[in-house]
Amino acid sequence: MNLAIMKNDATMKDVSAVIARVEDWGFTAHLSQNDAHTIIGIVGEGQGDWEQIRVLPGVERVVPVKHPFKLASREFQPENTVFPIGSHNVGGKGLLIMAGPCSVEDRSQIIETAIACKEAGAHVLRGGAFKPRSSPYAFQGLGEEGLKYLAEARDITGLPIVTEVMEPGLVPLVCDYADILQIGARNMQNYALLHAVGKAQHPVLLKRGMSSLMEEWLMCAEYILSHGNKRVMLCERGIRTFEKYTRNTFDINAIPVVKQLSHLPIIADPSHATGKSEYVAAAAKASVAAGADGLIIEVHCHPEKALSDGAQSLRPEAFAQLVREMRAIAEACGREIE
Amino acid sequence: MNLAIMKNDATMKDVSAVIARVEDWGFTAHLSQNDAHTIIGIVGEGQGDWEQIRVLPGVERVVPVKHPFKLASREFQPENTVFPIGSHNVGGKGLLIMAGPCSVEDRSQIIETAIACKEAGAHVLRGGAFKPRSSPYAFQGLGEEGLKYLAEARDITGLPIVTEVMEPGLVPLVCDYADILQIGARNMQNYALLHAVGKAQHPVLLKRGMSSLMEEWLMCAEYILSHGNKRVMLCERGIRTFEKYTRNTFDINAIPVVKQLSHLPIIADPSHATGKSEYVAAAAKASVAAGADGLIIEVHCHPEKALSDGAQSLRPEAFAQLVREMRAIAEACGREIE
Amino acid sequence: MNLAIMKNDATMKDVSAVIARVEDWGFTAHLSQNDAHTIIGIVGEGQGDWEQIRVLPGVERVVPVKHPFKLASREFQPENTVFPIGSHNVGGKGLLIMAGPCSVEDRSQIIETAIACKEAGAHVLRGGAFKPRSSPYAFQGLGEEGLKYLAEARDITGLPIVTEVMEPGLVPLVCDYADILQIGARNMQNYALLHAVGKAQHPVLLKRGMSSLMEEWLMCAEYILSHGNKRVMLCERGIRTFEKYTRNTFDINAIPVVKQLSHLPIIADPSHATGKSEYVAAAAKASVAAGADGLIIEVHCHPEKALSDGAQSLRPEAFAQLVREMRAIAEACGREIE
Amino acid sequence: MNLAIMKNDATMKDVSAVIARVEDWGFTAHLSQNDAHTIIGIVGEGQGDWEQIRVLPGVERVVPVKHPFKLASREFQPENTVFPIGSHNVGGKGLLIMAGPCSVEDRSQIIETAIACKEAGAHVLRGGAFKPRSSPYAFQGLGEEGLKYLAEARDITGLPIVTEVMEPGLVPLVCDYADILQIGARNMQNYALLHAVGKAQHPVLLKRGMSSLMEEWLMCAEYILSHGNKRVMLCERGIRTFEKYTRNTFDINAIPVVKQLSHLPIIADPSHATGKSEYVAAAAKASVAAGADGLIIEVHCHPEKALSDGAQSLRPEAFAQLVREMRAIAEACGREIE
Repeated sequence: MNLAIMKNDATMKDVSAVIARVEDWGFTAHLSQNDAHTIIGIVGEGQGDWEQIRVLPGVERVVPVKHPFKLASREFQPENTVFPIGSHNVGGKGLLIMAGPCSVEDRSQIIETAIACKEAGAHVLRGGAFKPRSSPYAFQGLGEEGLKYLAEARDITGLPIVTEVMEPGLVPLVCDYADILQIGARNMQNYALLHAVGKAQHPVLLKRGMSSLMEEWLMCAEYILSHGNKRVMLCERGIRTFEKYTRNTFDINAIPVVKQLSHLPIIADPSHATGKSEYVAAAAKASVAAGADGLIIEVHCHPEKALSDGAQSLRPEAFAQLVREMRAIAEACGREIE
Repeated sequence: MNLAIMKNDATMKDVSAVIARVEDWGFTAHLSQNDAHTIIGIVGEGQGDWEQIRVLPGVERVVPVKHPFKLASREFQPENTVFPIGSHNVGGKGLLIMAGPCSVEDRSQIIETAIACKEAGAHVLRGGAFKPRSSPYAFQGLGEEGLKYLAEARDITGLPIVTEVMEPGLVPLVCDYADILQIGARNMQNYALLHAVGKAQHPVLLKRGMSSLMEEWLMCAEYILSHGNKRVMLCERGIRTFEKYTRNTFDINAIPVVKQLSHLPIIADPSHATGKSEYVAAAAKASVAAGADGLIIEVHCHPEKALSDGAQSLRPEAFAQLVREMRAIAEACGREIE
Repeated sequence: MNLAIMKNDATMKDVSAVIARVEDWGFTAHLSQNDAHTIIGIVGEGQGDWEQIRVLPGVERVVPVKHPFKLASREFQPENTVFPIGSHNVGGKGLLIMAGPCSVEDRSQIIETAIACKEAGAHVLRGGAFKPRSSPYAFQGLGEEGLKYLAEARDITGLPIVTEVMEPGLVPLVCDYADILQIGARNMQNYALLHAVGKAQHPVLLKRGMSSLMEEWLMCAEYILSHGNKRVMLCERGIRTFEKYTRNTFDINAIPVVKQLSHLPIIADPSHATGKSEYVAAAAKASVAAGADGLIIEVHCHPEKALSDGAQSLRPEAFAQLVREMRAIAEACGREIE
Repeated sequence: MNLAIMKNDATMKDVSAVIARVEDWGFTAHLSQNDAHTIIGIVGEGQGDWEQIRVLPGVERVVPVKHPFKLASREFQPENTVFPIGSHNVGGKGLLIMAGPCSVEDRSQIIETAIACKEAGAHVLRGGAFKPRSSPYAFQGLGEEGLKYLAEARDITGLPIVTEVMEPGLVPLVCDYADILQIGARNMQNYALLHAVGKAQHPVLLKRGMSSLMEEWLMCAEYILSHGNKRVMLCERGIRTFEKYTRNTFDINAIPVVKQLSHLPIIADPSHATGKSEYVAAAAKASVAAGADGLIIEVHCHPEKALSDGAQSLRPEAFAQLVREMRAIAEACGREIE
């Protein structure tokens, strides 16, 4: 496959000329166009001289792409994607630390936890308002009320907020309150949702599906990128295997693989990747050493009372200790944690 | 957990009285109420005498349920769920045979295939109009145009139609054309979608997620049932494992397990479960022998030209031969294929 | 890769001439030689005209093989391997039914079970004397005493015996008592053991390893075949996956795949493949419909007292009923169970 | 389960008295006895007062063990097992670095590599003389000749040698040349081999089977320990999952889990865990951060010419760089690499 990347000032006539030429050669053309870019994907079994395309009016460059993901690939963009989250950059030298409870349970819980996380060194507050739960009879989250508490916690601490959005129709509502949109593992291949967040203006944290191949995960990032949203972080949160001693198997190989294949930042979620608080620190430190660009860690002031995921949540003091340990490892690796 | 099943004529006052009593005892009550039923889920660590609930006004019965799925369990309903699909019943003695192409590609393709499937013995026509594709650059289906062609094929052949719906907002549109709503494997845990089809009046074919536990799958059926739609078929379509010679690993054990745990019909999809047309017949016949209530099989008049899943599609004549072989096995097992 | 199959009366000089020629061409030659055959495997990146090899003295034929397994492949031998087990043939029209307890526990248990299995329709008696157990503190089998009881049960019933051998040094002892050597799933890639049974004169039942690819399994059969023992049966006994409701996931796809790739008989083990007696019948019937050449089923007169695998053992009366049901399906499929 | 640990000077009469007492109480006793220890495993559903056992003659202590592995558990021995390998200790503050080629290919190759590994910072030389290969036609290792070259490399460099032993009958031969016996992943549950190395006087490196649960792996260590050999290292080398971009999935969670459950040292094998040289450094550094007690890394002077595993082998200069990076991380974690 080849991509013809059009210049920003290319006209529809320019685009049509490229398509006509490659179709003459026996290829099929797919047009991916929005405010951010115009790209013509050229696939099939045709024959032609790419140099002729390169010199057509409006064409910026022609990129051969061997992977099925294109915009997400290092071939398309060799340098790291770096973008600001609050006063930090993700994808650069510094690691982004996100922390907070699994669910927003009530106003005082999220505010207390937000303050504790900030003091311990977190840069972003996490917390679920809409919760995907395997049982229809389980606590489903506080909904918009939870979003309001999150916004209040942000006002108090200054921490930007990451929270999950589960359906396309709720993207505008969640955007009203949140700073980062999280796509959960169960929804990784919910294409209508990927389309909706691809149209949004907020950064996206895309969790890997529990049995998704790395290539499939990058293809889901491609869906978001191809709809115009370039600020995507990939989040490795463990995969499902035969091993049951831990909740999931942390696929730490995914960190160097994603860094090689893609320019997008990679975030580790040691809480879901282990499922047991006693193993979170080891997995978190390993993530830093393997080259992760950030971490998202579940912290709860009273894990024994948590409405969800208590078993894998750290207390704030354990989290603060972990941040210190991760900082030492980051520095040993030429990175830093502010 | 216990369920208090309320009578159809129970009042809100009756419901409140049950809730008040069990909360007095230290339990938490979850109300699941719609046109079809009022059920109070009673969970937690309380202490009380269930006989006192049984005799309260408006209470039909109290059911202890050991599984996390309740309405889907054999404990809740010992007899098989049986309901009509066109002129056939699913869940009874006869097996329901669904067949057709992966995607609706054009008008003549779906009509030609529908006629061939009907002649070969199919009871329902399958065909995708909205396609979940791992690449944003791949053919995404014909959309509403495809639904119209399906409806036309139904008019010609009399075969009811099963087709996938991928987002809550499209459920009404798909209901306008289709007879059965298919939830695909990627969307098994798309709870907003489960909610939407739970509110719909059409039967649902719920595919198992590619790495979902049988219990999780039954929990997703529970979501649909608890929103009021009782006509759910479960579809085993293979799971993802380390084995790569076949596209998926057909978990044939799921057939007797689901029949034991649940009263819902179980359908086998040997096309996705193997991914290669040369193994479809063996997997299909095995499904019949294992006790499946129906099958869904990909059939294409020209597999070598199919826009998707050509490698696993049978030609009509091979499908007709397979129906004959399945019929013989069904009869040897005390079942039948009309 | 190509194989040069030498005639039975080929001399060492003939062999050397073939090797010299292909090495001249830049290939590497691997000699596989024993009483049964002389085969020269020719691998690498050489260049030459195979017709020149075909006409060398002592050469029977030259076979190109695209799979890594050679002697086990349908390309090497298009017709089914068929050989006698007691008064039955395996690999032909009739299915071979093997039954008996997981372990030989004492003299009366194995004799009582053998009689019951024979009456119910079994053709071969199974029973473990050397047991691979995950705990060093668990019952490890009766050893040679168990073999003696098995031999006594054979004397009484006439049923040939299949039993596991776990180490190369014990192959001669087990051969003294047993009719078929079983290689267990844990030992599938125990190459020293494969070598030893490859040198033995007894048929071998090779179980698939719990996480082995079908190709790896066929490669282990290749080890046995290449050491001179042609009477190998492959046994699908379930693979390890994330699903935990059943003990293993029965990879029923393996039955048509193995029949296509190899000429060797394929046996199903529904007892280990499900791990729960209530699902054994469904899995067994599915195996027949999928084309298995035989089954091995755990039967125990008193499953509640079994020292191992009681949960997956059928009582003799349930096994007898299952044989009747399988027979009906076999006949519907053009096969038979005597 | 309880273990009665007997004193070194306990008599057979003492042992018999313990067994008689617990059997009176309705338990079953399993005696595990060799030069190193006498332990009575007490299982079943009996009733009795353990204090009465504690005070019997010859009894050192009674240990309740909730895990199926006993001698391998932290409950049995709270402090880390530490033992010398050459001039280093494994299990203490310092990490043990093992390096070398997959296979010994010839005399000069292993000597050249040994010298390079030593200069780069390795403490132990690895190299396979007996190779488990999935194909009977592939290079099977040099056998005893390879062992001799390894011994020569040790004479030159002073590095102790770790090499695989694949069958019980070869344990004495391998012990004549090697310093550490490696049990490969395929042989993890080869109980005859575990028995043989349990009787040997050499430390053992026990690789995890590619689909083994952590508990099963610890049970295999238990086999070795219960036969008298206390010097066992556990080696995590990746497990088999659906993900195919890497050769295996590195289960880094296993490092903190094993450290918590067992007192035995845990070694990481980032070469097999990734299968691609470009990911080895990230996985190795992650292992150090996660708390591994050592690493085993494939190094080859000419990976492009390696007879096996070339794709995952580091060149000596890359390995030297990695040792420096791992040292910095070890120090940030309060460990060290000499």
